[in-house]
Amino acid sequence: MMERLQCPRLGSRIMTAQQAAALFRDGMTVGMSGFTRAGDCKALPAALAERARHERLRLNLITGASLGNDSDGLMAEAGLLARRLPFQADATLRRKINEGQVMFIDQHLSETVEQLRTGHLPRIDIAVVEAVAILPDGGIVPSMSVGNSASFVAQADRVIVELNTSVPMGLMGLHDIYVPGDRPAREPIPLTRPDQRIGTPAIPVDPARIAAIVVTGHPDSPSNVLPPDEDTRAIARHIVDFLGGEVAAGRLADTLLPLQVGIGTIANAVVHGLVDAPFRDLQMYSEVLQDSAIALIDAGRVSFASASSITLSEPVYRHFMENLDAYARRIVLRPQEISNHCEIVRRLGVIAINTALEFDLYGNVNSTHVGGTRMMNGIGGSGDFARQAHLSIFVSKSVAKGGDISSVVPMVAHVDHTEHDVDILVTEWGLADLRNLAPRERAPRIIECCAHPDYREELLDYFRRACARGGHTPHLIGEALSWHERYADTGSMHAAERMACA
Amino acid sequence: MMERLQCPRLGSRIMTAQQAAALFRDGMTVGMSGFTRAGDCKALPAALAERARHERLRLNLITGASLGNDSDGLMAEAGLLARRLPFQADATLRRKINEGQVMFIDQHLSETVEQLRTGHLPRIDIAVVEAVAILPDGGIVPSMSVGNSASFVAQADRVIVELNTSVPMGLMGLHDIYVPGDRPAREPIPLTRPDQRIGTPAIPVDPARIAAIVVTGHPDSPSNVLPPDEDTRAIARHIVDFLGGEVAAGRLADTLLPLQVGIGTIANAVVHGLVDAPFRDLQMYSEVLQDSAIALIDAGRVSFASASSITLSEPVYRHFMENLDAYARRIVLRPQEISNHCEIVRRLGVIAINTALEFDLYGNVNSTHVGGTRMMNGIGGSGDFARQAHLSIFVSKSVAKGGDISSVVPMVAHVDHTEHDVDILVTEWGLADLRNLAPRERAPRIIECCAHPDYREELLDYFRRACARGGHTPHLIGEALSWHERYADTGSMHAAERMACA
Repeated sequence: MMERLQCPRLGSRIMTAQQAAALFRDGMTVGMSGFTRAGDCKALPAALAERARHERLRLNLITGASLGNDSDGLMAEAGLLARRLPFQADATLRRKINEGQVMFIDQHLSETVEQLRTGHLPRIDIAVVEAVAILPDGGIVPSMSVGNSASFVAQADRVIVELNTSVPMGLMGLHDIYVPGDRPAREPIPLTRPDQRIGTPAIPVDPARIAAIVVTGHPDSPSNVLPPDEDTRAIARHIVDFLGGEVAAGRLADTLLPLQVGIGTIANAVVHGLVDAPFRDLQMYSEVLQDSAIALIDAGRVSFASASSITLSEPVYRHFMENLDAYARRIVLRPQEISNHCEIVRRLGVIAINTALEFDLYGNVNSTHVGGTRMMNGIGGSGDFARQAHLSIFVSKSVAKGGDISSVVPMVAHVDHTEHDVDILVTEWGLADLRNLAPRERAPRIIECCAHPDYREELLDYFRRACARGGHTPHLIGEALSWHERYADTGSMHAAERMACA
Repeated sequence: MMERLQCPRLGSRIMTAQQAAALFRDGMTVGMSGFTRAGDCKALPAALAERARHERLRLNLITGASLGNDSDGLMAEAGLLARRLPFQADATLRRKINEGQVMFIDQHLSETVEQLRTGHLPRIDIAVVEAVAILPDGGIVPSMSVGNSASFVAQADRVIVELNTSVPMGLMGLHDIYVPGDRPAREPIPLTRPDQRIGTPAIPVDPARIAAIVVTGHPDSPSNVLPPDEDTRAIARHIVDFLGGEVAAGRLADTLLPLQVGIGTIANAVVHGLVDAPFRDLQMYSEVLQDSAIALIDAGRVSFASASSITLSEPVYRHFMENLDAYARRIVLRPQEISNHCEIVRRLGVIAINTALEFDLYGNVNSTHVGGTRMMNGIGGSGDFARQAHLSIFVSKSVAKGGDISSVVPMVAHVDHTEHDVDILVTEWGLADLRNLAPRERAPRIIECCAHPDYREELLDYFRRACARGGHTPHLIGEALSWHERYADTGSMHAAERMACA
């Protein structure tokens, strides 16, 4: 323990999770570590949920992103969560959000701590952060994610550290903690390359503010990403071919530009597709590294990867930890404000690849709302990257629910990314390059390249009839969302016979 | 003329607009100066339109933003415009766009030149730039806007300069030309204050590339902004009160943070409202300065204003030119890439005030598409500012067309700004502060604070019935756009009797 708790005066703060949970009061705002199941607190969520089962305890919980260990579900089920931001990916919490029982604020992941600093969100009362070690000066060394922890710690009245003994001390040095200064005198963020370090290896904190240290030994929940299948491999192939064309046209070097790839099965498959692609010395400037990023490093394709979190399957996690020294030279973990910061994404010219739930004829993307109303996970960092990217690519399978849902629809039922922020759309059928196209030019290309053949004719028919009515972005307003209605009514977007609303 | 053309070897390039127009070939991509009727070329648009009336001449025209002098209408009517980006505000061109005769690409104004540099847009063949002078080294001193001119000139094979003798030479020194470096080695933009100069006073160019100089004497078209009325004064009052509350709460100093204010009548009125407000030593970091900005400087409220363009009414233009020396110390004009750059907007923490056509129960904003299909002007810089602002405020009158259109609708028929990018909504009825609110909390506040009383009950009824169906963002998909349908069918969003689609 002396190895991990290097600040001896803090020995007296070691306590159980139950004791630490007693520090919380009803109505508090709490900042917790954790980003896509990585580096989340393991003990406090359960201990707080247990308290909430026996007494009134409702918290506003802010994290980096999603938690593992079913923590979000446990806390939601116990009624602990009054308000939750900025992202989640838990079935139980999702249900509570969609029932209106938990107030969820879906945010661009780079913006949460900015809103904390400006006072637009309530001040953090308690920060709870998983760490591999506490340094002699109190500095907190995070584990497999940085997320918003540095800013939570900076603002909180009290800090609780979960020292996780299952995570190797070798992670020390992997992190680079930099927090932008206060306005109006903020300086430029001095980051000009993904492999650059501009901050400190630990989160600085006055040890007097560390109110509790809880020792745990539970590992991160393994990633639940599915392996590539035929469709996701096809999507990856389209993207590799497209990027190859950009290199051939002289618009990109064969080192490309730094890659950002969203969380999830399709995105993971896309990155796997780069293993055999004719690009070299790639760099990643992303928010999450998944199995595929490790595979690219192993294959010698990626020379450096910057992110805010590492979330791996069980075998790849073991492999990563066994070869930690080698990876530590090729990976840096940053606060999500920096990994996702508009300033850096624009400066570097990131190639951003993110997942759509559905997109429409004109390139507007819905990333979050099933049927236009029910929250899936959240917008996450997709908007941070898509807006400022060198290339903004969105990927989706062309259909869902065995073909009953078309991912290409006349009008998306919820907009997360407007057509202004979408350059390229890809499904297993092909890739639609929307650059330099007006809406009326985008629609036929999207239908031809991306829509499932079963839906192409009806999409074209809608588009033609809409054009006849006129408009820069032609729509039949009475029919624009009819595919979603039809799915809700019949369980399928397939037309029995075409609706005649127009 | 020697005073304005300080590079004598260029004397031989002086020619008529007709002669210069002969340099263009069918299919070329042309970059022209001009931003919100300021600093646009006066002679070439008419000369090119004249050519297009007699022969096949179709161009891709890229500007800073909208042009004055009916140029866009003239060129559209003549069939000269195949493709037009990134913004326009002309009745004739608008009609051609909505008829599908001109391919219009509606862009974030900070992004056009980035897309030119990366080759995502076709290369500029000819740049046409209005100037007050050409320096001995060829350097082009722009007139009342900078827009995208510096990047057009950098990329174009040939440059045509319109030397406008009606614009005082005293504008020299007003401009600050800085263009970000090429990726992947781009450095931070070293701008940390609105009043800072980081570039050169003129657009650098090898004189050998200046193919023609056309002398003109026609002034900018005067601003067509309407004076404040009772409603816009009420909107201004709500914003002043709100900002006063932020100062009182300690979230802002009484110098506020740099202000960005969109073009148009409401925005102009909001700025007028600051003349008597209890704030001091204000700064603007905006894209356009209108009459109201000059009024704030005259009143001693604004100590410095940065923008990309100055567009004034006739009397204020005269006043400005008569006192040019004084204003030149308090104003800088930058390329629109810099005035609107995410990096700077986020760093400075701009307070962004932009105009909505309509917004919905959850805070999504439509800035561009009448009825969801017909383009009005374009998104302009509103997205550049709203996304990265310290506070993102959207303003609108609560109704249009004598009350037949509600600006607050169940679901906007087109999304330009998602709820993630909207903090504050304001109409003449009040201000809805949406910070730290989930969608279900936003809706009642927006209805109560912003909707016209005639529409409140029906909006509440929609919201309640939608909530009963569930979802994070409750909607009745079959009814969500019914207000727009009703307006198209009956000429009014008012319900004769409530539709029972749900």
